Amino acid sequence: MYEFIEKLVDEMKDKIIGYRRDFHKYPEFAWTEFRTASLIAKVLIDNGYKIKIGKEVINDKYRMNIPSKEELDKSYKRAINQGAYEDICKLMRGGYTAVVGILENGDGPSISLRFDMDGVRIKESEDYSHIPFKNSFSSNNDGIMHACGHDGHIAIGLGVAEVIVKMKKYFKGTIKLIFQPAEEGVSGARAISESNLLDGVDYIISGHIGIKARKSGEIICGTDGFLATSKINAEFKGKSSHAGVAPEKGHNALLSAATAVLNLDAIPRNGEGDTRINVGKLIAGSGRNVIPGRAFMEIETRGETTELNRYMENYAERILMASAEMHDTHVNIKCVGKSISASSDDELVKLIKNVANNIKEYTIIREKDSFGASEDVCYMMNKVQANGGKASYIMFGSNLKAEHHSPMFDFNEKDMLCAVKLYSELILKIAADRDV
Amino acid sequence: MYEFIEKLVDEMKDKIIGYRRDFHKYPEFAWTEFRTASLIAKVLIDNGYKIKIGKEVINDKYRMNIPSKEELDKSYKRAINQGAYEDICKLMRGGYTAVVGILENGDGPSISLRFDMDGVRIKESEDYSHIPFKNSFSSNNDGIMHACGHDGHIAIGLGVAEVIVKMKKYFKGTIKLIFQPAEEGVSGARAISESNLLDGVDYIISGHIGIKARKSGEIICGTDGFLATSKINAEFKGKSSHAGVAPEKGHNALLSAATAVLNLDAIPRNGEGDTRINVGKLIAGSGRNVIPGRAFMEIETRGETTELNRYMENYAERILMASAEMHDTHVNIKCVGKSISASSDDELVKLIKNVANNIKEYTIIREKDSFGASEDVCYMMNKVQANGGKASYIMFGSNLKAEHHSPMFDFNEKDMLCAVKLYSELILKIAADRDV
Amino acid sequence: MYEFIEKLVDEMKDKIIGYRRDFHKYPEFAWTEFRTASLIAKVLIDNGYKIKIGKEVINDKYRMNIPSKEELDKSYKRAINQGAYEDICKLMRGGYTAVVGILENGDGPSISLRFDMDGVRIKESEDYSHIPFKNSFSSNNDGIMHACGHDGHIAIGLGVAEVIVKMKKYFKGTIKLIFQPAEEGVSGARAISESNLLDGVDYIISGHIGIKARKSGEIICGTDGFLATSKINAEFKGKSSHAGVAPEKGHNALLSAATAVLNLDAIPRNGEGDTRINVGKLIAGSGRNVIPGRAFMEIETRGETTELNRYMENYAERILMASAEMHDTHVNIKCVGKSISASSDDELVKLIKNVANNIKEYTIIREKDSFGASEDVCYMMNKVQANGGKASYIMFGSNLKAEHHSPMFDFNEKDMLCAVKLYSELILKIAADRDV
Amino acid sequence: MYEFIEKLVDEMKDKIIGYRRDFHKYPEFAWTEFRTASLIAKVLIDNGYKIKIGKEVINDKYRMNIPSKEELDKSYKRAINQGAYEDICKLMRGGYTAVVGILENGDGPSISLRFDMDGVRIKESEDYSHIPFKNSFSSNNDGIMHACGHDGHIAIGLGVAEVIVKMKKYFKGTIKLIFQPAEEGVSGARAISESNLLDGVDYIISGHIGIKARKSGEIICGTDGFLATSKINAEFKGKSSHAGVAPEKGHNALLSAATAVLNLDAIPRNGEGDTRINVGKLIAGSGRNVIPGRAFMEIETRGETTELNRYMENYAERILMASAEMHDTHVNIKCVGKSISASSDDELVKLIKNVANNIKEYTIIREKDSFGASEDVCYMMNKVQANGGKASYIMFGSNLKAEHHSPMFDFNEKDMLCAVKLYSELILKIAADRDV
Repeated sequence: MYEFIEKLVDEMKDKIIGYRRDFHKYPEFAWTEFRTASLIAKVLIDNGYKIKIGKEVINDKYRMNIPSKEELDKSYKRAINQGAYEDICKLMRGGYTAVVGILENGDGPSISLRFDMDGVRIKESEDYSHIPFKNSFSSNNDGIMHACGHDGHIAIGLGVAEVIVKMKKYFKGTIKLIFQPAEEGVSGARAISESNLLDGVDYIISGHIGIKARKSGEIICGTDGFLATSKINAEFKGKSSHAGVAPEKGHNALLSAATAVLNLDAIPRNGEGDTRINVGKLIAGSGRNVIPGRAFMEIETRGETTELNRYMENYAERILMASAEMHDTHVNIKCVGKSISASSDDELVKLIKNVANNIKEYTIIREKDSFGASEDVCYMMNKVQANGGKASYIMFGSNLKAEHHSPMFDFNEKDMLCAVKLYSELILKIAADRDV
Repeated sequence: MYEFIEKLVDEMKDKIIGYRRDFHKYPEFAWTEFRTASLIAKVLIDNGYKIKIGKEVINDKYRMNIPSKEELDKSYKRAINQGAYEDICKLMRGGYTAVVGILENGDGPSISLRFDMDGVRIKESEDYSHIPFKNSFSSNNDGIMHACGHDGHIAIGLGVAEVIVKMKKYFKGTIKLIFQPAEEGVSGARAISESNLLDGVDYIISGHIGIKARKSGEIICGTDGFLATSKINAEFKGKSSHAGVAPEKGHNALLSAATAVLNLDAIPRNGEGDTRINVGKLIAGSGRNVIPGRAFMEIETRGETTELNRYMENYAERILMASAEMHDTHVNIKCVGKSISASSDDELVKLIKNVANNIKEYTIIREKDSFGASEDVCYMMNKVQANGGKASYIMFGSNLKAEHHSPMFDFNEKDMLCAVKLYSELILKIAADRDV
Repeated sequence: MYEFIEKLVDEMKDKIIGYRRDFHKYPEFAWTEFRTASLIAKVLIDNGYKIKIGKEVINDKYRMNIPSKEELDKSYKRAINQGAYEDICKLMRGGYTAVVGILENGDGPSISLRFDMDGVRIKESEDYSHIPFKNSFSSNNDGIMHACGHDGHIAIGLGVAEVIVKMKKYFKGTIKLIFQPAEEGVSGARAISESNLLDGVDYIISGHIGIKARKSGEIICGTDGFLATSKINAEFKGKSSHAGVAPEKGHNALLSAATAVLNLDAIPRNGEGDTRINVGKLIAGSGRNVIPGRAFMEIETRGETTELNRYMENYAERILMASAEMHDTHVNIKCVGKSISASSDDELVKLIKNVANNIKEYTIIREKDSFGASEDVCYMMNKVQANGGKASYIMFGSNLKAEHHSPMFDFNEKDMLCAVKLYSELILKIAADRDV
Repeated sequence: MYEFIEKLVDEMKDKIIGYRRDFHKYPEFAWTEFRTASLIAKVLIDNGYKIKIGKEVINDKYRMNIPSKEELDKSYKRAINQGAYEDICKLMRGGYTAVVGILENGDGPSISLRFDMDGVRIKESEDYSHIPFKNSFSSNNDGIMHACGHDGHIAIGLGVAEVIVKMKKYFKGTIKLIFQPAEEGVSGARAISESNLLDGVDYIISGHIGIKARKSGEIICGTDGFLATSKINAEFKGKSSHAGVAPEKGHNALLSAATAVLNLDAIPRNGEGDTRINVGKLIAGSGRNVIPGRAFMEIETRGETTELNRYMENYAERILMASAEMHDTHVNIKCVGKSISASSDDELVKLIKNVANNIKEYTIIREKDSFGASEDVCYMMNKVQANGGKASYIMFGSNLKAEHHSPMFDFNEKDMLCAVKLYSELILKIAADRDV
């Protein structure tokens, strides 16, 4: 059976690479993936998938870090101008940019694959050694770039979509291909996970190009060590006053912020496991001779476990509030992203390993490694596992040209094909029609 | 008439110096002036004064910084051993060490003089050039010393007491000689001021040896520029834990305290006038490998005006509370001393100047200077002024041997005599019996 | 004689107001006053003044806070587009925007008047109650505004220039009308003062509309209490690293900056007099999950005297350097503005008062007040005084519409006329030809 | 052969317990173990051991945290009074309190056992449920207590000394029984390790009662995860001044210290492994109204590896120096204790496991666990391993009555006997005379 899949995928090579390059050319930020999601939806529909889209799969209460109305509108218009399907886009208006393709194919296991779609805020390299630039498919959207491989993830997802449909008679079950917005900043997965989309799902599988798998031909079948994290914005509002004439009339927001920075970094280490804290950005004050009336901070906490991150987040919030009180300022604390920890199920990992063993391109097959960073797919993994299902997260090896999130990031496009093969064969293995 | 006073005082020379040396030998801390006050009371009684003592002239609600019961008991016993009158001491048990001598001498103005009685926590010099040591009247009470001249103030007060009685027929009115405990740390005057002792008082006069009057023969007739001040103790209580195994289980009182120190010193300067803040002492922690569960701080705020000090005190309290909250510790804030600002009345200052002009020892007579420090007699001055009375504070010049509050502090004993002359003549001037 | 001046000035009313409105319409920042200075130069030349311009009157070593080449070029082009005289502008290329008009009129005292020319970084109000907006002479240069009255100062200066020339036969001496760039941020006067322009000058006089003179008809003849000040930019450069994976590889510039903020605000108060410190702006970091590799701060110190400001500046620099060292970052400290303290000479103040008494519009004539802020004309005042000359600084009353440096700032244009009268008559009084 | 040892030890029960109780009654601090070491020496000599003592086995350059001469003298006198052997004590005068018993028994492996001797600064419980108190062998030296089981370690060591001598004919080799001072605060082992005592040693074995082995009958044969640590004292010296009159004249040592505390706790977490930092004590200032001229801090750093601790220590020193510079104070940094990381050799661990399997009292035999704290025996382990030898550290289970370093700490005395059996049998196993 696998030979059939192999042939199918190899024939789709140009199509899959074509998908990737198109998405690479028009990267979109978190919650503004209008063009991306509408193109995905079109492909899914054309392949006979039932579509769920926008609010159907998003629990509004858990959306985080939504852009302003202005930004949403601007991105929407840009998407239309860049070839988005307007009738589909309308269903996502306001930033509900999730799309799920569902294939109901008889009684059998319910299997979900998840792919992320958003770009990052990086200006793409214009160096001739950077293939996307040289080959004219680098970002058309200034300051945004697919610098984390999500363009590849989408192309893999669309490849799988097409293959699976052609295999319908060999398996029984329900397949959900979930295309998630807003993975960067971990602000998207939770809202999908808290919809009813994952009810009754038996398997959730996702993956990432690169990370710890740094060579083409390598695959890591399961992933643990996702860091739980919280992304927090804090804005101190005090009162300005003339720094020479009446400093005492001011309520110094920068003094609040500086106190917070030092104390946040001084949150005690934790005997239970690894934690992290960072104040990545601070912008305060208006002019040299004015007591600063406003200070804005971007913070993140992390923990080896969900509990450890909760400890960090709670402590951080207490510090922020006390820092405000201290200089009679007010602080507005907003959680703009959040993820938890998760681990892959050994049984499923072993199954993936078996499948990988059959794919000749995979020459370095490792069972598990630690992610060492955050991924909000963990919400989906935990949800499915809590209902008795299984989850795994795969790292797909590729010769990377530069670090993730850097202007010259690029991967080897051929490696997308093996991933399509693996996902397709895996579905077949799990949902094989025993009657066949 | 003045010649009479002059002669009287000159004859009392040895007695007055004797008083001073006796008090110098047995200095007592704030609220433990049992021996001192009982000896004063005895002299006043022997001279025919009516006595008010202890709780009669102290409003318990406003006593600040009372020593522990152990310290009070220990000091009480020491006083008895060092010659205190036990029957008088009983009336002051528990640290009510105030004594007032009242002379009711017909219808006339009510004039109060105030003298302070306590020593400071300084170990007296054992250098032979230090006269009290050389002449064997240096402190018998280790670690306590009359290093601010209050021993001289008492001797002056007792001198005045004796002179006045002998002048009874030349004036009409009521004289109150107030001997106040606990001026150091400004924790005593308010409690007396809030009793009814000063009701109906027309004149309150007090003074100090030295300060801005640094030469024998100098007198400054009025004083302004008393700094309002608050003396605050803060104790942070958190929770200890093993710094290696479980730092996160601790609630770090030292982190609270260090944050407080930096932020207290960063309270904004004030466009309305001068302010001060100091954390003079910090003691925190128990052992190197233990997260500190306790931190104790001694703080003082000051302001050019009572309002400016209130600004500092309020801001400081907010910082202390927020610093506790920040690291989940508790803070116990205690005001252990407080004084306000005050100024001398020009009319009374001019009268004092006239009197001084008659005393041949005074060769440098200045009208006013600024105190530049704190003195809790300000409570009494404000109280009397609020009721329509007049107040002044005199600085009596003397050749000082060393700075106030230093181990070799000493003044020229002869200068006490001119002060006795001035106070006595001043009373006569104010309350002269016009019928005589 | 004064009646002659009075008539002359009253006839110039429309011209003077016209000048002011033109300058108001095209405000220019510090060191980019190309259009402004070239128009001034043209008027001076047309009136027969000898001109010194650009590097002739600027000591390059003391120019501070020069804009970037890009900004200078952009402003230069804008100036040309907005009607500047290109042949004059060429002489100021690179930001040497000072122009001085010199009238050598025989043997007599050397008198200098100083006027400042720059606008501030404020967006002008578009409210109809704001007269410049209503009457269509509000700023054409977005984000820049004459919100401190320097447009008025220039107009006064040009008025005086014209009047004085017509009075030539009534006085003997040398008049220098100094038009200074970059007063805002106190970065301009020192460079002029350190040229040889003020050698041999006997009188330096300057002034300001408003400040402490808040009513039309008011004049304050002399000013003291200029605060010495230093404007400091500090940039910490550390090293970024991934906040989750390798926080220890970063050198955290924000930790350096936050430590600096707290400690700068905690520089001790000073027993010798008033001081100020403010960190008015802080911008740090690049992204939430990146250890901040860069932090930029705008700081100012002030002192009641030059010495007190030096204490603050030295302490601040020590803190900045130690804060860098602490977290192994580097700090680049740059003084971008500086002024010293100064006081007006009583003799000259009295002379000004006499002149003011003759001008009927002045109904509230005060001798002196304190400036309470900084003005770099102090460098010129000190220079002239050091050489035995006299200096005074006048505050010209006007009904202000809003605070200085606010978007609706405006003054009563008629008040410029009295200022022209006063300056002109004052020159006549000082340099009157005794032979006439 | 083991039956022989077993019988021998069981017969020594009262003697071993007697030793422990005697040492428990007279606990001595680091570097003052005069009585303890002299009694040990006496036992060793009586059993025929060659003795090395004092400077013979201590490299003076590496002694850390030596008490003051006063303390050393006082402790010395107390030791004599409490039954120390004066002739032996003389050899340790000045705090050279190490003693080593050497048994040279033919050609064979060189095996060293190490025992620590010092008590901790804790006041022992006077609760009747505390057996040492109930049975009258609780501490006679107020404020010192054997609260970590070192009394038991010594008793075990003396038990082994006696057993081994009786087994001489069954093995060949050299046995060194090292009794080390100053383990608490990790200030003793390095000085011994840097002498030549360990040259040529093939095996170094040490151990601890309790820690991770919390039940009688449990034994953990090898230990890893010793935290490298540095114990640092820092003293800031600034300059006092009057906080009201001249705060600017002070150099505020408390401001330096508070800045250091916050920044020390804010040293970044490390991606390479676990680290710790603690400021366990801070004492600063003299009086409320005095700018603090002195501040003293006790600090410790830790790291999962020697390198991680070095990172922490270097960063901490940089912070301390920068904090001093910041407020123009001086800091004196002193390392008063230091330990490195170490791990036990698997081969030796397995041998110990085999021996333990033969001892019937051991019912829970675990191969390895992590220490999770610091132990300066690591210096000796590293030294021996560097020379090609083997090392292991054993945790001897016991039912503890309370946590280590708490006033009610106590262990089950019977568990000492199994330890004696294990050490003795282990020596026999390693050095068995193959010819026998």
